[in-house]
Amino acid sequence: MFERRKTRLIKVGGVKIGSGAPISVQSMAKTDTRDIVATVRQIKKLEKAGCDIVRVAVKDAAAAKAIRAIKEKIRIPLVADIHFHYNLAIEAINAGADKIRLNPGNIKKKEDIAQVIKLARQKKIPIRIGINSGSLPDPRRSMASSALEYIKIFESMDFRDIIISLKSSDVAMMIGAYRDMAGICDYPFHLGVTAAGPASCGIIKSSVGIGALLYEGIGDTIRVSLTGDPVEEVRAGIQILRSLGLRKEGVEIISCPTCGRCEVDLVKVVKEFEGKVQKLSGYPSGLTSWSKRGPRGDCHHTMRLLKVAIMGCVVNGPGEAKDADIGIAAGKKSGMLFKKGKPIRKIAEKDFVKVLLNEMDKILNTNA
Amino acid sequence: MFERRKTRLIKVGGVKIGSGAPISVQSMAKTDTRDIVATVRQIKKLEKAGCDIVRVAVKDAAAAKAIRAIKEKIRIPLVADIHFHYNLAIEAINAGADKIRLNPGNIKKKEDIAQVIKLARQKKIPIRIGINSGSLPDPRRSMASSALEYIKIFESMDFRDIIISLKSSDVAMMIGAYRDMAGICDYPFHLGVTAAGPASCGIIKSSVGIGALLYEGIGDTIRVSLTGDPVEEVRAGIQILRSLGLRKEGVEIISCPTCGRCEVDLVKVVKEFEGKVQKLSGYPSGLTSWSKRGPRGDCHHTMRLLKVAIMGCVVNGPGEAKDADIGIAAGKKSGMLFKKGKPIRKIAEKDFVKVLLNEMDKILNTNA
Repeated sequence: MFERRKTRLIKVGGVKIGSGAPISVQSMAKTDTRDIVATVRQIKKLEKAGCDIVRVAVKDAAAAKAIRAIKEKIRIPLVADIHFHYNLAIEAINAGADKIRLNPGNIKKKEDIAQVIKLARQKKIPIRIGINSGSLPDPRRSMASSALEYIKIFESMDFRDIIISLKSSDVAMMIGAYRDMAGICDYPFHLGVTAAGPASCGIIKSSVGIGALLYEGIGDTIRVSLTGDPVEEVRAGIQILRSLGLRKEGVEIISCPTCGRCEVDLVKVVKEFEGKVQKLSGYPSGLTSWSKRGPRGDCHHTMRLLKVAIMGCVVNGPGEAKDADIGIAAGKKSGMLFKKGKPIRKIAEKDFVKVLLNEMDKILNTNA
Repeated sequence: MFERRKTRLIKVGGVKIGSGAPISVQSMAKTDTRDIVATVRQIKKLEKAGCDIVRVAVKDAAAAKAIRAIKEKIRIPLVADIHFHYNLAIEAINAGADKIRLNPGNIKKKEDIAQVIKLARQKKIPIRIGINSGSLPDPRRSMASSALEYIKIFESMDFRDIIISLKSSDVAMMIGAYRDMAGICDYPFHLGVTAAGPASCGIIKSSVGIGALLYEGIGDTIRVSLTGDPVEEVRAGIQILRSLGLRKEGVEIISCPTCGRCEVDLVKVVKEFEGKVQKLSGYPSGLTSWSKRGPRGDCHHTMRLLKVAIMGCVVNGPGEAKDADIGIAAGKKSGMLFKKGKPIRKIAEKDFVKVLLNEMDKILNTNA
């Protein structure tokens, strides 16, 4: 993998974004922000799933005002999503928002932007300049050049507490825009594919777009956008990071697709194991993450990653099982248990899940 | 995006792999190959989902023999997956396999390999040299250098009808191996992340690994490995290609994640629309592909891609709806219909799905 791009380090509440900080996972509440109870309930679920930063839509003064009450009940930093009306940014900052997102496509007047910058500086909160392909300030210009022009306004006021996003529903365009931008500024990037659709296609589009950039060392915070449950956005985001070794926590299942060689019901075993792991208390969203958080939502990713291999036959089974922390290489209605690279004993198919969970507990209780 | 890497063009039955050919999607039957009825049934489902090439495990002589009967009942090319016993490759070729996969980790004797090469040349079928991180020929050497050494045996016999795969369960390692190999040979690549786990993590790992390489122009045929239904592997594979504009067919849903601004039940609308599209007859796996096939499984990807935007509010709604073939930008319990970039009329929320399907039919019946 490429070395991570050097950027400024920006603070959003207790979470740092940019060089030196872990890549954070964001999501957005899909509730009416004015419905404080529903919004807090959803954000609590996102916190539990491992979300590092959450955004809410601020479409009127009542939504801006609700930020204060919402913030009192949640632990992770809250970002106010602002469009059309700069004065809603002012109200959101005064209500305690930890960051503001402005859309250059619909807040364009220099004097309006200046007022937001002035107050953000006073309250020491950053601003995300969030360009979307669906609402470009000038459709004849690229996302990167639109962002650059907007950035100039901020720099002319010596405000550099900035995060950039250049989201497109076209994955190749999105990758290209961030790559262009990476060479010409040192602000951290918020990565995302916009309007990516329902989970069936949105997870894949987001994985391809965000993944390709992360592999190149580009990206400091990510958001997977899905038409559906935002908890799925967080799970997918964490899994994208894990797939490139950028987040090392939780349980990673290494399991083969099975084929005509397989003589156990591996799909059933993996499904059962995955279900049990997801439900383990103290393992928020199980498979993804069991990070701990500080009182102000500080982002600590210090827990370990446990690799569990569940393999169907002798072709790649022993190799993958040896490389994992715990592994089973199955044979006929049974399998060989491996721990830390060594074969331990033969176990019956019906005991696979039980044995894996036991061994997992042993490792976590002694090493974690 | 980068220009596609130049490679030789290899023929697998009626499907071409390499420069000039579309990137094909593969899967593997998970049935016992000797169970001809079950194997044919599964392959038929894969064909319907848009699978271009299918592989079966050949673990004994009976499985090799079954290839002849299976091939009679399917349309796509059949690949025999061989491990440990070179003589099973001989039997599979004699039974009519369209391609052989050999694993350098467990078929190592030069004279054995030579016999397979001799018969493959005679029958004019290609061989995939399929390296896996779980069964490396020599664990001290990299996947790319292991492949190179194996390739030398083939080249010494002037056999160049070769496809290469370098699959690892570690995504970054897999990307690195293919990138290394891309510079030092002109054989087409079969991309995949091995032992990627169940769909929940396997789709993401595969999308990141395969997607990053495809964006760089590397990769000629792909397989998503999932512990689960192989139809999901095909759907995910096609969606990876579509996300980078490498396959332009089927219906692509552009829909926003919704937020506190949304005043329609967009998740419900998108779910209903997605379900209807998936069921449309003549659209195999609906959302993914409705390609047509020739009598020998020839791979024609000549149908069109239809972009349908279903957007929740005025921020990015009109922009995305204009960019799509058909779009709805929702407001309060209603939405503006767009066609080919132009606003057409206001429609009620309850009519969204019906109107989108009608407009889709109109476009497909006049233009397709």
